[in-house]
Amino acid sequence: MSKSRLEAFSDGVFAIAVTLLVLQIEIPGAGGDLAHEVGQLWPSFASYVVSFFTIGIIWVNHHTIIRRIAQVDRTLLFLNLNLLLWVAFIPWPTALLAQHLRDTGANEHLAAAIYAGTFLVMGWSFFAVWWHARSAGLLERDLDPAATQRLVWRNVTGQLAYGVALGVAWVSATASLVLCGLVALYYMHPGPMLPWEGSR
Amino acid sequence: MSKSRLEAFSDGVFAIAVTLLVLQIEIPGAGGDLAHEVGQLWPSFASYVVSFFTIGIIWVNHHTIIRRIAQVDRTLLFLNLNLLLWVAFIPWPTALLAQHLRDTGANEHLAAAIYAGTFLVMGWSFFAVWWHARSAGLLERDLDPAATQRLVWRNVTGQLAYGVALGVAWVSATASLVLCGLVALYYMHPGPMLPWEGSR
Amino acid sequence: MSKSRLEAFSDGVFAIAVTLLVLQIEIPGAGGDLAHEVGQLWPSFASYVVSFFTIGIIWVNHHTIIRRIAQVDRTLLFLNLNLLLWVAFIPWPTALLAQHLRDTGANEHLAAAIYAGTFLVMGWSFFAVWWHARSAGLLERDLDPAATQRLVWRNVTGQLAYGVALGVAWVSATASLVLCGLVALYYMHPGPMLPWEGSR
Amino acid sequence: MSKSRLEAFSDGVFAIAVTLLVLQIEIPGAGGDLAHEVGQLWPSFASYVVSFFTIGIIWVNHHTIIRRIAQVDRTLLFLNLNLLLWVAFIPWPTALLAQHLRDTGANEHLAAAIYAGTFLVMGWSFFAVWWHARSAGLLERDLDPAATQRLVWRNVTGQLAYGVALGVAWVSATASLVLCGLVALYYMHPGPMLPWEGSR
Repeated sequence: MSKSRLEAFSDGVFAIAVTLLVLQIEIPGAGGDLAHEVGQLWPSFASYVVSFFTIGIIWVNHHTIIRRIAQVDRTLLFLNLNLLLWVAFIPWPTALLAQHLRDTGANEHLAAAIYAGTFLVMGWSFFAVWWHARSAGLLERDLDPAATQRLVWRNVTGQLAYGVALGVAWVSATASLVLCGLVALYYMHPGPMLPWEGSR
Repeated sequence: MSKSRLEAFSDGVFAIAVTLLVLQIEIPGAGGDLAHEVGQLWPSFASYVVSFFTIGIIWVNHHTIIRRIAQVDRTLLFLNLNLLLWVAFIPWPTALLAQHLRDTGANEHLAAAIYAGTFLVMGWSFFAVWWHARSAGLLERDLDPAATQRLVWRNVTGQLAYGVALGVAWVSATASLVLCGLVALYYMHPGPMLPWEGSR
Repeated sequence: MSKSRLEAFSDGVFAIAVTLLVLQIEIPGAGGDLAHEVGQLWPSFASYVVSFFTIGIIWVNHHTIIRRIAQVDRTLLFLNLNLLLWVAFIPWPTALLAQHLRDTGANEHLAAAIYAGTFLVMGWSFFAVWWHARSAGLLERDLDPAATQRLVWRNVTGQLAYGVALGVAWVSATASLVLCGLVALYYMHPGPMLPWEGSR
Repeated sequence: MSKSRLEAFSDGVFAIAVTLLVLQIEIPGAGGDLAHEVGQLWPSFASYVVSFFTIGIIWVNHHTIIRRIAQVDRTLLFLNLNLLLWVAFIPWPTALLAQHLRDTGANEHLAAAIYAGTFLVMGWSFFAVWWHARSAGLLERDLDPAATQRLVWRNVTGQLAYGVALGVAWVSATASLVLCGLVALYYMHPGPMLPWEGSR
């Protein structure tokens, strides 16, 4: 399996998952008060934005890792498929949260917990790809250990934040969604870029 | 992040957004007067065509810019993700306008304003990608200043037209949609092509 | 605009259009007689197969042409976008025909005419891409005139058949669908392959 | 037709089919007991996972074959289109099984049989691509006969298992689904990788 086809397939799943998110935003029917109904859809817009950037960031990070891989083995292929399974699943918890952010307390909390929980499991799946690549010696030999370590720490930080969001969901669904959005913002501004991330 | 993977992911989102537009066109149920019902769907067909060509043009212009970029930094990645967020969103205002172009005045005007407004924000997002690439020195060094200037002016022209369409929406939703279609036509016939746009 | 990005975007639209076709096949609800209901869906299955192979053939032919193009100009880009607009539209007439093949006579005939008519217009759009490439001198210079002529004749044959299918639709919707399927079969078995079609 | 464009188109269909699976998972409406309703969706989750990995494995195997092909002919193109037709169809039997796994006996058995039967026909279609490539001399000359033989045996094993799953469906729909999942697991752990599968 060539790296380039692994990337092409993964990019396809990322691009489709991110674009399918919009299908979950309801189209208010004719005859009502459209301004009011569009306003009521704010949970759909908010979860659209958070899910879009979360998948976008996973895509960026996925590329960073795949780029450092020198060889692909079958385990890596299937760990990568497992990651994509969770990425492709994201439109469902996104729609679930959008639907239930205005619902009764119990439903609202559960929907937010499923949303944050999906991101947490996706984070684990991402880490498993990386971990296997490192422990099976599939990475390029000239990889800077400090950069490697930093990547691990950033991943752990994200996991912890999603874990907190999962807990916060039971107190406030909206706060949990905001926290997931903050994780995306955190990954967007990581300080100076690593040398091997910026060049073409 | 290599330019080629940035292009592949962006192309994916453009291609999917453009193809999902068709899902929003209703399928009339059996038993009615199909000729009449298909005729009633003209707002769906009209907004399908305008949205299709608008996304198509953004895709062409996106390629023109990315081609001139020599280096990708993290800010560019996220400004590009922000642009794609708006591109992927377009099926929603398209369906909204199709649904409400035959609705009461207030709804019709609001739907057209959201439609033109989405194009306006997409235009801003596009310009932000370009602006950052230029000010951060990510463009190729041999870029012709006249071509650069021309690209800026064409972008400003489009923005102004979308701004007018946003205003016109409150007077006539149909006129606003027609204006958005004219912007697409304008971008299709830009006079002679720049030298670096035509060769393979 | 590089040829490779034109191909990537076009391939994306072809692949998505062909895969979205399945969304139009109804999922019978629980509690009924599933065997009977699945049997009633035969128009959906038949139109799925015909539309799938028709898009597949257009994809093969599209590649044959793009491969012979040496240069891309802006007109070609937009003629290609116009072709993709019709390709991306196909899921709608496919669903329309599936829905109305068991409907009253007038509806059934109209749906089949819209179906064949979409293929006819798609054929014209395809021909326009080819015609412009030839008349604007965008093709490679070493193109065999006999092969060129043959491609034109095969296109004309397909157009004529779709025109006949459009007429037949007003007599029998099923016969029109069968005829569209026969066009796909015709394009699949074109006699010996041209030399420049078979090598990698 | 170049191999690379054949791969790009096929990868697109695989990636889209796998990502569309999520659209079939219902979004429970507001106001009910969400925990209960999500629990009731287990057939949707189970069939999502099995279908996702099944398509993923076909994608991996597809690449293994295409990589060994030296030349593409028109028959191969259309046998490949036929394979993609079945891959793109998978979301439908997946949704059908999810919908009817809690239904009356007859419906449940039929849905599971259609599900396993689709995988069986997809396996045949895959084998036809391989068989034609081998008998028409399209494969690379240096292909190891032992590796070839092994690939044939693994395919036959999968076919047999899907055949058994098709029979088991009439006894227990759940057991049939579990068996389809086991086939996916079998293909994931094939013992040591062939030399030409692991390098980049």
